[in-house]
Amino acid sequence: MRLATFVHQGQRQVGLVSADGQTVTPFSLNTADAQRGVLPLIEGVAAGKSLPAPTGGALKLADVKLEAPLPVPRRNLWCVGRNYHEHAKELQGSVFKNNNSNPAAWPIVFTKVPECVIADQADVLLPGDDISPQIDYEAELAVIIGTGGKNITKADAMKHVFGYTIVNDVTARDVQMRHQQWDMGKSFDTFCPMGPWIVTADELDGQHTRVRCWVNDEPRQDGRTEDLIFDIPTLIETISRGITLYPGDVIATGTPAGVGLGLTPPTFLKTGDVVRIEIDGIGTLQNRFV
Amino acid sequence: MRLATFVHQGQRQVGLVSADGQTVTPFSLNTADAQRGVLPLIEGVAAGKSLPAPTGGALKLADVKLEAPLPVPRRNLWCVGRNYHEHAKELQGSVFKNNNSNPAAWPIVFTKVPECVIADQADVLLPGDDISPQIDYEAELAVIIGTGGKNITKADAMKHVFGYTIVNDVTARDVQMRHQQWDMGKSFDTFCPMGPWIVTADELDGQHTRVRCWVNDEPRQDGRTEDLIFDIPTLIETISRGITLYPGDVIATGTPAGVGLGLTPPTFLKTGDVVRIEIDGIGTLQNRFV
Repeated sequence: MRLATFVHQGQRQVGLVSADGQTVTPFSLNTADAQRGVLPLIEGVAAGKSLPAPTGGALKLADVKLEAPLPVPRRNLWCVGRNYHEHAKELQGSVFKNNNSNPAAWPIVFTKVPECVIADQADVLLPGDDISPQIDYEAELAVIIGTGGKNITKADAMKHVFGYTIVNDVTARDVQMRHQQWDMGKSFDTFCPMGPWIVTADELDGQHTRVRCWVNDEPRQDGRTEDLIFDIPTLIETISRGITLYPGDVIATGTPAGVGLGLTPPTFLKTGDVVRIEIDGIGTLQNRFV
Repeated sequence: MRLATFVHQGQRQVGLVSADGQTVTPFSLNTADAQRGVLPLIEGVAAGKSLPAPTGGALKLADVKLEAPLPVPRRNLWCVGRNYHEHAKELQGSVFKNNNSNPAAWPIVFTKVPECVIADQADVLLPGDDISPQIDYEAELAVIIGTGGKNITKADAMKHVFGYTIVNDVTARDVQMRHQQWDMGKSFDTFCPMGPWIVTADELDGQHTRVRCWVNDEPRQDGRTEDLIFDIPTLIETISRGITLYPGDVIATGTPAGVGLGLTPPTFLKTGDVVRIEIDGIGTLQNRFV
């Protein structure tokens, strides 16, 4: 199933996208729950309930405005750095220069603030060259946690996956590097496009899919999640060691090779650039940088 | 004023602590607001309202159970690393070994998840040696943001401070170091004792106070906030560059010298240890490790 958050006639709603992608049928949620996007449905399933049947009338997708499936996630998003072999190589002289030289040792996990999430088609705000002239994209498969838990084993991990969405882990490279810890350089306002919806885990095998990214229709990234250094079960096991994961937690699994910083010369985003990400089995996330 | 969150007769309430520290008088908050602790009061003040007068009957502090003033902060807490000169020296061979050698360059900012906050007198859970045998304390002054904003200047920064509390930035040192990014090693369940209450900025000058810490009554840390490498206005300016701060955001300002990792030999916390932190003008935060 594809679960989307959207605005129709000024009201935020949550709905089921039809198999042909033409319509979305709203669930009956009270206003407070609808504000939380898909999260109340995830919490319900995590609590052992079935997903309710959508009860509203089908709306044409063309007539609604998509929002991020989790418009403001419940807490900072978990994000993974250096998690595709080729990406680790392209950045070894910059982002990772002071880091452990063995990328196979332990995953790098940082966070992005929930308030920087924006929808498919929403604009990403370039902060201005005085704040950062080095804004970069990172196309990523994001795992949405269903049932929470602590000290989850690899063997059990996939049972905790509710579904998947696309995230653009937009980054201010100079800020990321100079502060050593990355959270600030990853958390600028609007720096987390997410969408277009959540695909449930029964419909997509996140461990075998393709992640591609274009800037102004020029191909930049093309990776497969089989090439993750730390696969999804390992990430869930690692992050949940001592730390309870909750329904609706987001884990952005890292980006393939081909970011702007890795180009020769490094090339950052400028006003008017459009970044489009496609993940097979999910769809397309596209945002203009202004 | 000292604003406390507490439980009385099974109900979470928020109240004003009396000048003599003997009683707390509840504010009239609806149940949903009371769940958020002091946050609705902070949001009210940030929106230009005066703090309401507490209207309940005074309760003896001895008869209530304190909770963290912000039981679950609105998003991950901002935390600052390596922010006292002497502490930077004691850890230069360990936590900071791969980092920029110039501590004066830029602050190190990472986060802790909101769900790891616990109250004064609550127990911190040692995760077990298989998860981490290197649990350490860090006594810290925490700034509570009042009026939010983005790109706040140093000159304006102190106007955005609602008040202060104490935080113990409990850390799993091996996890902190091996993942390079610190958020996981700082976010284990129960790893953020906070309290005993928030002191409003009109009653405490956070830039001139003393931070002390004892383990089992043995003095370990004793610093003054005049010795911060990056002072409070600089931290607010830095974190708000491109990132909107919100009312109720927490910035833990870093810890003085004397953490367990800095002792010879390094000494970590064990079952039954009691860590007590005092900050002049705020009070005491004490927690047992079990």
